[in-house]
Amino acid sequence: MATLGASKKHKVTVVGSGNWGTTMAKLVAENVKAYPTIFDETVRMWVFEEEVIIPKESRHYDAGSEASSKPQKLSQLINTVHENVKYLPGITLPTNVVAEPDLPSSVKDSTILVFVLPHQFIARVCDQIKGKIVPYARAICCTKGVDVSENGIRLMSETIGMRLSIYCGALSGANIASEIAQEKYSETTVAYDPPPMDSRAPTPSGSPTSSQVDLISPSKPIPSARSARLKALPSEYPPLSHENVRKLFHRPYFHVRIVDDVAGVSLGGALKNIIAIAAGFVDGLGWGDNAKAAVMRVGILEMVKFGKAFFEDSVKTSTFTEESCGVADVITSCMGGRNFRCAKKATQTGQSIFEIEQQDLNGQKLQGTSTAYEVNEFLKSQGLENDFPLFTAVYLILEGKAKPEQIPELIEPK
Amino acid sequence: MATLGASKKHKVTVVGSGNWGTTMAKLVAENVKAYPTIFDETVRMWVFEEEVIIPKESRHYDAGSEASSKPQKLSQLINTVHENVKYLPGITLPTNVVAEPDLPSSVKDSTILVFVLPHQFIARVCDQIKGKIVPYARAICCTKGVDVSENGIRLMSETIGMRLSIYCGALSGANIASEIAQEKYSETTVAYDPPPMDSRAPTPSGSPTSSQVDLISPSKPIPSARSARLKALPSEYPPLSHENVRKLFHRPYFHVRIVDDVAGVSLGGALKNIIAIAAGFVDGLGWGDNAKAAVMRVGILEMVKFGKAFFEDSVKTSTFTEESCGVADVITSCMGGRNFRCAKKATQTGQSIFEIEQQDLNGQKLQGTSTAYEVNEFLKSQGLENDFPLFTAVYLILEGKAKPEQIPELIEPK
Repeated sequence: MATLGASKKHKVTVVGSGNWGTTMAKLVAENVKAYPTIFDETVRMWVFEEEVIIPKESRHYDAGSEASSKPQKLSQLINTVHENVKYLPGITLPTNVVAEPDLPSSVKDSTILVFVLPHQFIARVCDQIKGKIVPYARAICCTKGVDVSENGIRLMSETIGMRLSIYCGALSGANIASEIAQEKYSETTVAYDPPPMDSRAPTPSGSPTSSQVDLISPSKPIPSARSARLKALPSEYPPLSHENVRKLFHRPYFHVRIVDDVAGVSLGGALKNIIAIAAGFVDGLGWGDNAKAAVMRVGILEMVKFGKAFFEDSVKTSTFTEESCGVADVITSCMGGRNFRCAKKATQTGQSIFEIEQQDLNGQKLQGTSTAYEVNEFLKSQGLENDFPLFTAVYLILEGKAKPEQIPELIEPK
Repeated sequence: MATLGASKKHKVTVVGSGNWGTTMAKLVAENVKAYPTIFDETVRMWVFEEEVIIPKESRHYDAGSEASSKPQKLSQLINTVHENVKYLPGITLPTNVVAEPDLPSSVKDSTILVFVLPHQFIARVCDQIKGKIVPYARAICCTKGVDVSENGIRLMSETIGMRLSIYCGALSGANIASEIAQEKYSETTVAYDPPPMDSRAPTPSGSPTSSQVDLISPSKPIPSARSARLKALPSEYPPLSHENVRKLFHRPYFHVRIVDDVAGVSLGGALKNIIAIAAGFVDGLGWGDNAKAAVMRVGILEMVKFGKAFFEDSVKTSTFTEESCGVADVITSCMGGRNFRCAKKATQTGQSIFEIEQQDLNGQKLQGTSTAYEVNEFLKSQGLENDFPLFTAVYLILEGKAKPEQIPELIEPK
């Protein structure tokens, strides 16, 4: 018996192997070793297979050797040298991280799926593993962002949960993968609050059809009735309580707080980028740290209002004002993130942020601008632009219809 | 009639004329002009009289003139050139700011007293005007800080309220006087929540004796019974509602939010300095913005806990997590305040913060270090050091009993 009353252990798969995915695999692997009665000792990591040449940053680069100049399969390299030489070079992974390039094999029998994929791959990957996972698996989504359009708001965790018919929580915080990989101290927030589940035998036919995979919109909050279709964890497993989920992620250098509020945690990671742009616009005016702090404070309260307006049943004020995924992530994003930096430079140089983006970001796009447009489109569709004056101010400035100098006036409470 | 049902107007005195006092006088004077039915058009400012020579930074400096090299009375200069040439040079004051060097004359007949004095002068000034103010005057204390010792905690507003037998609120926020004087945008928080008051005729003998001017301690919360001794505002005056108090301070460049929580607002302005030291220690290690944001977040929640532990009846979580006096002031103090800067340099150079203080501050003292010691003395007396691990960690580092590297371990939730 693994633990009292539990004869099985949880197998964990990290779905994704970029720098954040590899970092999550590293810390989860450290934790499964620390709690061998709860978790299986191997952590599988799904690797999108590619041929790589060991770069100079790797611990295994050897200028003279033939092996270092020959392309090799990334998954094999990871399993041989215990380093993701392409996406997290220089960091040694625990030997119990096992790279697996075959997606269905990587998730087989796992009761815990940690999703760390780029936004645009999530739906596709889910469709490829649908029906190939245990029906009572639980997922945690570590990808930041939400899908917002005029039709509504959809959380990444919702996409995963609905497509796989499993419960999906979320992890988000003031986190930079490379710092955590180096074991520099930071914090994160995990949202995990599975509803009561059906404890009868799993029936694959009970999964939702595509027509049931709806967007969340203000008129249609997260349907709690969906929970009836989720399958309970068999009693042979240790419970996936807050305490045990925390054990999977918490490290001495990575402090975890668990909350219930999946929507709040997910929204924080998206909306903070709009705030960072606002803070950058104001900071570029040279108005000092107090003006910047004021914009950040107003922004945090606007996140709260947004969450409560559109997810009223579940979102808590404290998720934004007290947790790493809220206030701390806003602070970090407004100290040095690229949304902040580009917006500041736009004000300072008199250029548009789109020009700065093009000059400075090597073809990459700012998340804050697209989120600001998406959120505005949604607010407009709801007739609520005036209720979110800071979000609306950022949109107006991006559109060239207002100037950063007008922010105090635009957000002044009447 | 000034306003419907109000035949009298509120006279306002700003008690203090340093850079923050003069800035407050400026903005209050702008507001009394904007609301002439509520407030008398003259704002008196008590000036501690001194002889000054017009400095180069003044708009009225004239290298060639004899007047510029001759010492003149500060109050007369202010009333002639409408500039506080010594403490706020370069800023033109509205002509309805009238400097008054005689303390009792400056407060005579004023119904609103805005205290902006250095901490150490408050009690003395109160004793000098006791019995010389209208008994139904109301005060707002704009001086940051609290008195903490092993005996208990006393708010500045408590000192003023008890010594003068009047109600005293508080103003605190992410504010730097010189920036507000230049009308750069910022926000502040005003705490104002007068209890029900005695509407009978004032009886000067009803004021508390010195033995009643007690420290607040955990076993002895703010005595609400004291309110019975406060005199209600006569009905000839416009009411001093939240709305009218906001009108006195709010400007397009200085956004005001009014709350009820005097203790929370006051504690924020003191405890944030301990957090700034913690953030500086961690930032000096080069752990990045996420580590710093984590320490700030933990610090904000420790302020909440402190407030609730020792002022349970009145302190609200939101004062710290949502208002300028809380989260925004913490952010500003941890971005560039001198507590932060000295602590960071101490970690970077391996010197103690006291050595840095001596080298860099020209004989001035950091508020954060003394507050950390005072708070620790108090927590120790209550046996509660372990309940405030970040505050205690700062104390231990100051004492050389811990290192900044240990902060994550010291604040890790068990």
